[in-house]
Amino acid sequence: MSFRDASSGPTSPLGTSSEALAFPKLLGEISFDLDGLVPAIIQDDTTNAVLMLGYMSAETLSMTLEQGRTVFWSRSRQEIWRKGDTSGNEQRVRSVHYDCDGDTLLIRVEQVGDGACHTGEYSCFYRKLG
Amino acid sequence: MSFRDASSGPTSPLGTSSEALAFPKLLGEISFDLDGLVPAIIQDDTTNAVLMLGYMSAETLSMTLEQGRTVFWSRSRQEIWRKGDTSGNEQRVRSVHYDCDGDTLLIRVEQVGDGACHTGEYSCFYRKLG
Repeated sequence: MSFRDASSGPTSPLGTSSEALAFPKLLGEISFDLDGLVPAIIQDDTTNAVLMLGYMSAETLSMTLEQGRTVFWSRSRQEIWRKGDTSGNEQRVRSVHYDCDGDTLLIRVEQVGDGACHTGEYSCFYRKLG
Repeated sequence: MSFRDASSGPTSPLGTSSEALAFPKLLGEISFDLDGLVPAIIQDDTTNAVLMLGYMSAETLSMTLEQGRTVFWSRSRQEIWRKGDTSGNEQRVRSVHYDCDGDTLLIRVEQVGDGACHTGEYSCFYRKLG
């Protein structure tokens, strides 16, 4: 499967039928937690910096795969959160990996704009402990 | 605060008194979840590869800071899991950052041995989705 180029314009929320059929099999590899979520580590594909950790439901992971942009489930707002819709700082998906337990995702992205953090920082991990 | 060089021999489980006193203040920056855990992204400080995601309690985060080696809470075994004690593949801490919400850690490490994954793979994220 290749990811759509998110810069090429609006994408369908459902994707093509072949993509839609493929997702249940793909999602079967992933273990969602009791809240129906899986943590997704977001890494800049260009700089290798870790930008943030977000959470995805089966629905928002499907949307991420379909649209080629990261879509999360906001635990604080309890709603779908398509990264960049407000800030413009969207994340274009370059690859998606999952770990040995199938309960964590690693998504490498092209980070658009100044960065990933709502504070204006490039990475959410801008504070050192100690 | 500087991390001890874990290669320099055994460390005290309690650290020096100044370190022990410093931890409550440091840990106050971190939001642990309802299970008392915080996810920790482990990144290879040399290659920038993301190796794994583990979970730390306040106790194992303190142990990590004190000992300069990653110590996790194993959710499956419900016990403290000092990385490398069985495999030899310990992780020596180079830096610890926390995110804008204070609910995720990013720990950059020197990965000892062949890698981080119990399967023998270098990174736990060795499988691509799609």
